[in-house]
Amino acid sequence: MDESSSPHASRRDLLRGAAAGAMMLAPAAAHAARDGDLAKVQAAIRNDHEANLKRLRDWIALPTIAAESRNIEEGCTHMMQLAREAGFQQVERVPSKGIPGVFATMDNGAKTTLGLYFMYDVKQFDPAEWSSPPLESRIVDRPGMGQVLIGRGAVNQKGPESLVLAALQGFRKAGAKPPVNLVLVAEGEEEIGSPNFAEIVRSPRVLAALKKCSGIIIPASWQSPVDGGVSVNLGAKGVIELELVVTGEAWGRGPAKDLHSSNKAIVDSPAWRLVQALQTLVSADGNTPAIDGWFDKVRPLTPREKALIADSAAKRDQAHEMKQMGVRHLVDDLPWQQALERLAAMPTVNIEGLVSGYTGPGGKTILPARAVAKLDMRLVPDQTYEDCVAKIKAHLVKRGFGDIAVNVSGGYDPTETPEDSKLIKAELAAYERAGIKTSIYPRLAGSWPGYVFTSAPVSLPAGQFGFGHGSGAHAPDEYLVIESSNPKVMGMDDASAAFADFLYQVAVIG
Amino acid sequence: MDESSSPHASRRDLLRGAAAGAMMLAPAAAHAARDGDLAKVQAAIRNDHEANLKRLRDWIALPTIAAESRNIEEGCTHMMQLAREAGFQQVERVPSKGIPGVFATMDNGAKTTLGLYFMYDVKQFDPAEWSSPPLESRIVDRPGMGQVLIGRGAVNQKGPESLVLAALQGFRKAGAKPPVNLVLVAEGEEEIGSPNFAEIVRSPRVLAALKKCSGIIIPASWQSPVDGGVSVNLGAKGVIELELVVTGEAWGRGPAKDLHSSNKAIVDSPAWRLVQALQTLVSADGNTPAIDGWFDKVRPLTPREKALIADSAAKRDQAHEMKQMGVRHLVDDLPWQQALERLAAMPTVNIEGLVSGYTGPGGKTILPARAVAKLDMRLVPDQTYEDCVAKIKAHLVKRGFGDIAVNVSGGYDPTETPEDSKLIKAELAAYERAGIKTSIYPRLAGSWPGYVFTSAPVSLPAGQFGFGHGSGAHAPDEYLVIESSNPKVMGMDDASAAFADFLYQVAVIG
Repeated sequence: MDESSSPHASRRDLLRGAAAGAMMLAPAAAHAARDGDLAKVQAAIRNDHEANLKRLRDWIALPTIAAESRNIEEGCTHMMQLAREAGFQQVERVPSKGIPGVFATMDNGAKTTLGLYFMYDVKQFDPAEWSSPPLESRIVDRPGMGQVLIGRGAVNQKGPESLVLAALQGFRKAGAKPPVNLVLVAEGEEEIGSPNFAEIVRSPRVLAALKKCSGIIIPASWQSPVDGGVSVNLGAKGVIELELVVTGEAWGRGPAKDLHSSNKAIVDSPAWRLVQALQTLVSADGNTPAIDGWFDKVRPLTPREKALIADSAAKRDQAHEMKQMGVRHLVDDLPWQQALERLAAMPTVNIEGLVSGYTGPGGKTILPARAVAKLDMRLVPDQTYEDCVAKIKAHLVKRGFGDIAVNVSGGYDPTETPEDSKLIKAELAAYERAGIKTSIYPRLAGSWPGYVFTSAPVSLPAGQFGFGHGSGAHAPDEYLVIESSNPKVMGMDDASAAFADFLYQVAVIG
Repeated sequence: MDESSSPHASRRDLLRGAAAGAMMLAPAAAHAARDGDLAKVQAAIRNDHEANLKRLRDWIALPTIAAESRNIEEGCTHMMQLAREAGFQQVERVPSKGIPGVFATMDNGAKTTLGLYFMYDVKQFDPAEWSSPPLESRIVDRPGMGQVLIGRGAVNQKGPESLVLAALQGFRKAGAKPPVNLVLVAEGEEEIGSPNFAEIVRSPRVLAALKKCSGIIIPASWQSPVDGGVSVNLGAKGVIELELVVTGEAWGRGPAKDLHSSNKAIVDSPAWRLVQALQTLVSADGNTPAIDGWFDKVRPLTPREKALIADSAAKRDQAHEMKQMGVRHLVDDLPWQQALERLAAMPTVNIEGLVSGYTGPGGKTILPARAVAKLDMRLVPDQTYEDCVAKIKAHLVKRGFGDIAVNVSGGYDPTETPEDSKLIKAELAAYERAGIKTSIYPRLAGSWPGYVFTSAPVSLPAGQFGFGHGSGAHAPDEYLVIESSNPKVMGMDDASAAFADFLYQVAVIG
C-alpha cells in the first residue's frame, strides 16, 4: 500500500485504564447474544496474544518483493494458508499475467457481506539503513509509544492485516460466527503499482463475489501517535510510476556505452538531455506539473470538500506533522488549511530517483551512455492513468524528446467513495464506539489500487480502515505499536478487538 | 591518469619482421659504445619477458584506489620497492595532507636529467562489468591486436609505467648505465584529481631535483591500434571534478530525510532543485558551458595550432575513432577537422553521475532529501582551476542556488609545452627512429596534473610519452597489448626496448 498516514489532533481524552479496553468496546445497543459473542471474541483475542504476534512475525520473515521477484510463490501460498486458518472456507490462487492473486470467501450465513483487500507484498529495503534487522520483527521500546515491532511490512501492510486475521481467529477460538460474510482479494504486486490487479478482481468469480459486498476495506493502523485520532478518507489520489530513460542508442547521439569524459567536447550527453527534458515537466520551483494538458481534467474541490478540509485543518497539529515529515517549510509557506487543500487537490510530478553514470564515492570521469529518472505522479479526479500516460508521451514528443523511453511500471486512477455510503457510516460508528476522534478528509494524498473497487464493474465504496498505530511505510525502521503506553492509541490486542466490533457495525448498518 | 588516447592514421608501412625490432631501433649515428650498450639492454629486456610481465601482474593485483581509501600504504610501499629494483639509488616516501607520494633519484653521472611522473593509483572498477577479473591480468587473444593483458591499470597507468621499469631493469641486467640521470615523482591519488600533488612536487628536495631536469614525461601506450601512429600533445586540458549536492537540510526546504512521495504536493523537492540548477550550467543542447564568465579567459586557437589540427585531421581516421568511441554522430555533426578543433579548444561541463533517492530496480515512492550531480569540467588555457571554481559558485549564488554545496574533490590547470622544447624534439626523434608516424596535436582533451611541472616554480616541458597500445582507461576490460599481431604496433618487449632508445635521444638532444 502506497500511502502515508494522516494523523490528526484531538482535544478529547479517552477513557482508558486497566479495564478500559473491554468497556470502551461494549456496544451501546442491547443485543445480548451479540454482546456475549463479542466479549468472548475479545477475550479470545487477548488470550491468543503470543500466537497472533507470532503469525505477524512469521509473515514478516517471508518478504514478497515484486520488484525483486522475491518469494512470489512462497508469499502467495503463505497468504492462502493465512486465509484458511482465519476461517475462509474457500481459498483460491488467482493466476494473472504477473504475480498471482488470492481470492477467498467466508460464508457466515449473514445478510451483509464485507470485502477485504490485502496485499501480501512489501517494499524493498536495505538492511544497512535499519537500526533493527527488517525481517526479524524485534520488539523495542519507543518512548511515548510503548513496545513497537520493527520490520518491513509492520504497517504497510502485514501488520494491520494481521490485526484483522487475529480478530477472525478470535471468532473461531470463541466459537462465534462473524456477523458478516467476508470476501478477501489479495495481490502480491501492490508495491510495483498493481499492474495486474484489475485482471484479478474482474475475473468472473471474484467479480461476482465482490458484487455482493456493501463495501471493501484495506486494513490500516493510522491512529495518530499523539491523540489517537483518525482521518477517514473519502478517496485517494491515483498514481503513475515510470522511468524516463535516455540512451545514446535510442537517441542516435551520444555514446553507445560509457565513454571517457574528455570526449564531451565532441560527443553529446544523454545525462544533459535527461536534465533538459525533466525541467520541462514542472514549474521552475518544481512544485506544479507543467506537462501539456495536465490540468484539463482536474476537478476543483467542492465547497463540501473545502469545508471538510477546514475542519481537518483545525483538528490536525501542523507543528507535529511537519516534525514527523522532517520539514521546516511547506511549499510556498502556505497556511495549514491551504496546504491541506493543496495536498488533496494538486496533482504531483515527483522525482523518486535519479541514476546516471558513476554513482559511487568520489568521481569517475565518464560520459554516461544512459541516464534515468524515476518519477511518480499523483493524479486527482477526473484525471485518469491512461490519459495522463498518453499526455506525458505527447509532451516529450512535442519537445523533440521522442527518443526518451517512457517505461511505465504501474499506476491507477484516483478513487472516490461517497461520504454517505454505508461503509463510511460503519467506519465512523466503529471509531465513535472506540472513543476515537475522527475527521473526514476528502482525499488521501497517497494511492492504492482502490479504483478497481470504486469504478465499474465492481463499483463499491472502498477505503482504508483500522485501529492502532504504525509508521515508516517504505522507509527504514517501519514499525507497529504492539503494547501502547499512550492510552489514546490502541495496542495490538485492542486494535484486533475493535475490528471485531467493527464487523458488528457493518452488520447493523447493512 | 585521466586522458583518452588519440590514435591517428598513417599510410606509411613499417619495416617489421622477425628481426625488425632490433633493426628498427639501431641508431642512425655511429656511437659504437652506446650502440653496443643499447643492443645489450634490448636483448636483456627480451630475455626478461616473463619477469617483466610478472612485475606488471603483481602490481595490478594490488589496486590502490584513492576514492575508496584502498591499499594506500601498501601501494606506496610497493611503488618504492619498484623504484629501488629499477635502480633508483635514493627512494623516499613523501608525506602529504592526503596520500603519500614517492620521490626517487637515479644518478648515472650523465649530463642530462629526465623527469618521470608515475601514478600508483587506479580508477575504481566493478568486477561485474568485466569479461575477465580486473585484478587477475588474464592474457586473452584479441583479433587484430594479438595477446592482450586485461586488468585495471593495464593502460592507465601501471602498464606503460611497467614498460619503463622493464627498460630500466634491462640496463641493470645488461650492466649498462642509462645515458641520463632520472628523477621519479609518483603519487597515489591521481584518480581523484591529485589534490595534494603540488604539495609533493614543491617540497624543497623534490623541487630542487626536478629543476635539474630537461623535461618530464608520464609513460603512455597510445599507439593507434590500426597503424601504430602516435599523437604528440603539446599540452592538456585542465579539469575540475566536483559534486553539486542539494539537501533539504541546507536548503531549509524539502525533507530532512527521504519522505513518502505523497507529500510532494506540500513539500519542496531537492531533486527538482538540482535539475533546475543543472540546466543553467550549459546550453540547451548540453554542449556549451553557460556558467557566467566561463569564456572570459579562454584563448582562441592560434594559426599554428589550427594548422597542426588540420594536419592531424588528415592523418586521423574519423570513422575508426567514432567506432572506438561508440558514437554515430558528433556534436552538431561537425566536419572532422572542426570537431578536432572543438576537442582541443572547447571547455566542457560534463555530468559524470547523477544520484538521488531510489536507484535500484523498479520504483520506490519517496521524495528524496538529497540529490547529487557529479560533474567534471575540462579547462583550456588561460582558464584556471581556481578562477573557474569561484565562477561556478558565483553563478549558483547569483541564481539563488547558494545553498547548493559545491564539493570540489580535485582538479588542476591546463598545461602547455612548447613545440620547440628539447623534450618534444627527443620524443619526435625517438618515434621517428622507431618508424612510428607522428602528428602533433595542440592539446590533449583529457587532463593530467602536468601543470605542477609546466607552471612555476618547476617550469618544465611535460607530457605523455611511450610506445605500445592499450585502451579502456576508467572502463571495464582495460587492456594493454603484450604480444602484438599488428606489425605496426609494438608489443610489450619492443615498447620497453624503444623506451631505452628514447633515453639515448634525450641524452643526445640534451
